[in-house]
Amino acid sequence: MKRQLFKAAALGLFLATASLAQPKTLQDYVPSGYQPTADQIVAKAQGADLGWSRLATLCTRFPHRLSGTDGLERAIDWIVGEMEADGFDSVSTDPVEVPSWRRGTEKLMLLSGDSSQDLAVLALGGSVATPAEGIEAPVLVVSSYDDLEKNRDKAKGRVVVYNVPFTTYGETGRYRWEGPSKAAEAGAVASLVRSITPFSLATPHTGGMGYDEKFPKIPAGAITPEAAQSLARRQASGIEDRVRLVLLTQALPDAPSRNVIAEIRGREFPEQVVVMGGHIDGWDIGEGAHDDGGGCLMSWEALRLIKEMGLQPRRTIRVVLWTNEENGLRGAKAYRQLRASEVKDHVLAIETDSGTFHPSGFGFSGTEEARVILQRTVDLLKSSIGPMEIKTPGGGADIGPLMAEGVPGAGLTHKDERYFWYHHSAADTLEKIDPKDFRNGAATLAVTAFVVADMPERLPFGKARE
Amino acid sequence: MKRQLFKAAALGLFLATASLAQPKTLQDYVPSGYQPTADQIVAKAQGADLGWSRLATLCTRFPHRLSGTDGLERAIDWIVGEMEADGFDSVSTDPVEVPSWRRGTEKLMLLSGDSSQDLAVLALGGSVATPAEGIEAPVLVVSSYDDLEKNRDKAKGRVVVYNVPFTTYGETGRYRWEGPSKAAEAGAVASLVRSITPFSLATPHTGGMGYDEKFPKIPAGAITPEAAQSLARRQASGIEDRVRLVLLTQALPDAPSRNVIAEIRGREFPEQVVVMGGHIDGWDIGEGAHDDGGGCLMSWEALRLIKEMGLQPRRTIRVVLWTNEENGLRGAKAYRQLRASEVKDHVLAIETDSGTFHPSGFGFSGTEEARVILQRTVDLLKSSIGPMEIKTPGGGADIGPLMAEGVPGAGLTHKDERYFWYHHSAADTLEKIDPKDFRNGAATLAVTAFVVADMPERLPFGKARE
Repeated sequence: MKRQLFKAAALGLFLATASLAQPKTLQDYVPSGYQPTADQIVAKAQGADLGWSRLATLCTRFPHRLSGTDGLERAIDWIVGEMEADGFDSVSTDPVEVPSWRRGTEKLMLLSGDSSQDLAVLALGGSVATPAEGIEAPVLVVSSYDDLEKNRDKAKGRVVVYNVPFTTYGETGRYRWEGPSKAAEAGAVASLVRSITPFSLATPHTGGMGYDEKFPKIPAGAITPEAAQSLARRQASGIEDRVRLVLLTQALPDAPSRNVIAEIRGREFPEQVVVMGGHIDGWDIGEGAHDDGGGCLMSWEALRLIKEMGLQPRRTIRVVLWTNEENGLRGAKAYRQLRASEVKDHVLAIETDSGTFHPSGFGFSGTEEARVILQRTVDLLKSSIGPMEIKTPGGGADIGPLMAEGVPGAGLTHKDERYFWYHHSAADTLEKIDPKDFRNGAATLAVTAFVVADMPERLPFGKARE
Repeated sequence: MKRQLFKAAALGLFLATASLAQPKTLQDYVPSGYQPTADQIVAKAQGADLGWSRLATLCTRFPHRLSGTDGLERAIDWIVGEMEADGFDSVSTDPVEVPSWRRGTEKLMLLSGDSSQDLAVLALGGSVATPAEGIEAPVLVVSSYDDLEKNRDKAKGRVVVYNVPFTTYGETGRYRWEGPSKAAEAGAVASLVRSITPFSLATPHTGGMGYDEKFPKIPAGAITPEAAQSLARRQASGIEDRVRLVLLTQALPDAPSRNVIAEIRGREFPEQVVVMGGHIDGWDIGEGAHDDGGGCLMSWEALRLIKEMGLQPRRTIRVVLWTNEENGLRGAKAYRQLRASEVKDHVLAIETDSGTFHPSGFGFSGTEEARVILQRTVDLLKSSIGPMEIKTPGGGADIGPLMAEGVPGAGLTHKDERYFWYHHSAADTLEKIDPKDFRNGAATLAVTAFVVADMPERLPFGKARE
C-alpha cells in the first residue's frame, strides 16, 4: 500500500517537472500500445534455442577467457563470426590493451604433522609471485581489520589469513581487494583471504586485488571458507600452524583485446543509443557461465530477437561485450574514451553482470522521472514473466564510466539468486544456469531495450537528484 | 488416513502375536509414565555444551581419521581419555586390524591447448597407483553402463569418465564402487567417476571402491560433477580431450586400530544390550563432521546425558564407535566376531551415520511389533523436538552384521538433510552442522536408547517377516 502511494507521488513529481515547455505524461514515453509487442518478444524469446545453444558453445569451447590469453581472443573471434551471421546493421570491434596476468602453479601446504595436507588455493588476479620454492611461515588468522590491528605485533613474518564471514560482496570483498597491502603494512609475508561467498562446498573463489604502492607487494591468494574456519579454530585451540605457499604468477606485457559491438540502427534518431551488454572476459577457472557468459549471451540474444522479428526502433540499440572487466576494467574505459563524443547520445546503459537467474527488474541510477518510465516499461513483462521492479540505486562496473557522465544506468536484477555461490570459481559452469531463466532474461532485456529505444520521447538524461 | 488404518491394523496384529502365552499391550513396552523422563532428557540435551564442544575438538584437532593412520589412533586415544572422565560403568577398546591405504600425490591435467588446466581429482579409497609420471590417454565419457557397452570399441586404451547424474547414493554409488572394473573389462586404462552428490560447487568426493579380480586393476579417481559435465559437452561437440592422471596411492600392511566401547550397565538385565554408535574413522580430507563425527558424538553425548541425570535403565546401554567403516567395515565385522556369544542379547542396534541434521525418526528393520513400539517411543519426542517417524526398512553398515542375525536395527533419519552435499569431501566440516540439530539428535538417541533399555518387556527380536 505504501509503495503505491509513493509511486503516485513520484508520478506527480514527474508530470510537473519532466519538461518545462510542455508537461509530458507517461503515455508519451510508454504508450499502452507496447503490450502486444512486448508479449510477442517474450513468446519469441521463450521459444528460441539459438541464444542458449550459443552460451553452451561459449562455455564448452571457450571456458577460460582471461584477459591477455588466446582463449579470450578465440572466443571473441567466434562471437564476431556468429554476430555477422545474424545480419545486424553493423558488427565491429574496438581495440583495447589489456593486462596479461597468468596464474601458474599454485600450492598451499599445511605443515602440521598428522593433519598435514594440501589446501586448495587460488592466486588473486594481479598477485605477485612467491619464490619458486614458496614461502614458509606461521599463520596468523584474523577476523577483521580491527582484529589485525589488535594482533599487529604477531603479524610480522607471518601469512595473514582473513577469516571474514560473508556479508555483502562490497563489504567482504574489501578484504580480497585491499587486504594484501593491509597485511603487508603489518609486516606479513603473504595474505590469504577466505573466499568471498555466503556458501561453500570447499570452493575457492579468485578475484581481482590491488596493491597500495606504499607497502611491500606480497603474494595474495584465496582459500576455501572451510580451510579458513578450520585454521581459525586451530589457532583458537592453541595449535600453531605453519604453511608453505607457492604462487608462481606471471605479469606479462599488456596484450591486445577487443570490445565487440553490434547494432540495430535507429530509424528516426540513429545517433541516439540504448547500449546493453556484459563482459566477455572471465577468469581462467570454471566456464564463466554466470560471470558473465550469460549476461553477454542474453544481451546478444535480445538484439537478435529484435532483429529476427523485424522490429526497427526509433533509436539505435547497441550490444557491447566489454573486454577485461575482471582485472582492469580496460574495456569499459576504452569504450568511454573512444566514444567520448557519443556519450551524451547514450539514452540508457544496461549491464547484465549479476548472473543468470529469474529476472526481477533492474537496479537503476538516474532521475526519478526515468525510474518511473522504466517501471512502466518493465510492467509490460508482468503478465508474461512476472513482477519486475526498478530499484535504486543500481548500474554496473562496465557502464560506470558512462553513468559518471550522466547516462542513466540499469543493471539486471534477479530473484532467488545464488550468484556468489558460483562467482569466480570452478563451479561457475553452464549447468548452474536454468535455460528458462536465460530465455526470460533475454526477453526482459529485449523488451526494455526496444521500448526505451522506440518510445516517442527520449528517456530523461542525468543523474539522480541528491 | 491410509497410514492410520495401517497402524491400527499393525497394532492388532501385534497384540495378537507378540507373545503366545499372554498377549502384551503397548503399555507393557512403553508405559505412559516415560513422558516426563523424556522431556527432562531433551531439556538437558538442549542445554548441554559438552558434546558439541567435543565434536568441535574432534574436527579441529583430529580432522583426518583415515584407517591405518596416526590421526585416527590419536583421535581414539583422546576419546578414551574423555570417556573415562565421564565416569561410565566401563570404557574399553576391542582390537581391530584395518587396511592402511594412502592417498599420495594426485593430479589430473586436461591437455587441450587453450583450455588446458588442472582438474580436481581424488583417488578412490583402495585405488591402485598410476606410474609416477602418470597415465596419459584420451578420454571416453559415458553416461551409464549401457552407454559404456554401446561404446565398448572406443574404451580400449582410454580413461573412462562416468558422467552419471545423481539419483540415490545406492544407485549412483555403484559407478564409484564397481565402475573401475567395468571400465577395465572394456579395456580402459583408468576410471574417473563424477562425484556422487546431488549438488556441487566444484567439489570432488572420494569414497571406497572394490576391484573385480577377473579384470586388470586400473587406477580410479573421482572428479567434480562440473568437470564431468564439461568433458561430456566437449566430447559431444567433437573435441577429443586427453588427460594425464597421476594417483600415487599406496597400499601398506594392515595396521592395528580399535573399536571404542562405553557402557552404562543395566540394573536388572545387564546382559541385555541396547547398542548405539557411529564410526570414528573417516577420510583424509575435510573433518568428517557429518560423516561421522556427529554420529559418534551424538551417541556418546546421549550416553553421557543419561549418566549425568543418574538414570540407570533395566538393560545395558552401550555406545560403540566403530573403526574402519569407510574402507573395510573391519570394525563392524570384528565387533560381531569378538562378541558372537552376546549377539542374541542385543535388544536393539542404533546407528547414526547419515549426517547431523534435524532428527526425524529412524529407518528400521525388525518385526512390525518392534516398529510399533519404537514409534510409540519416539512419539515421546513429538512435543519437545517435533514429529518423528519409524520408517521401514533401515539400519546401517556398522550394525549390518548384527542385523543379519536378527538384531532389530535402526538408523537415525533427518529432515531437510543435505548429507551428500558434504559426504566424503573437504566440505564436510564443523560449520556445516547446526549445533541445535546436534543437541536434538543427541536427545533423540538418549530418549530412544533409554526407553528401549528400560521398558518392562524386551523389544521383540528378529527380522521383518517377508
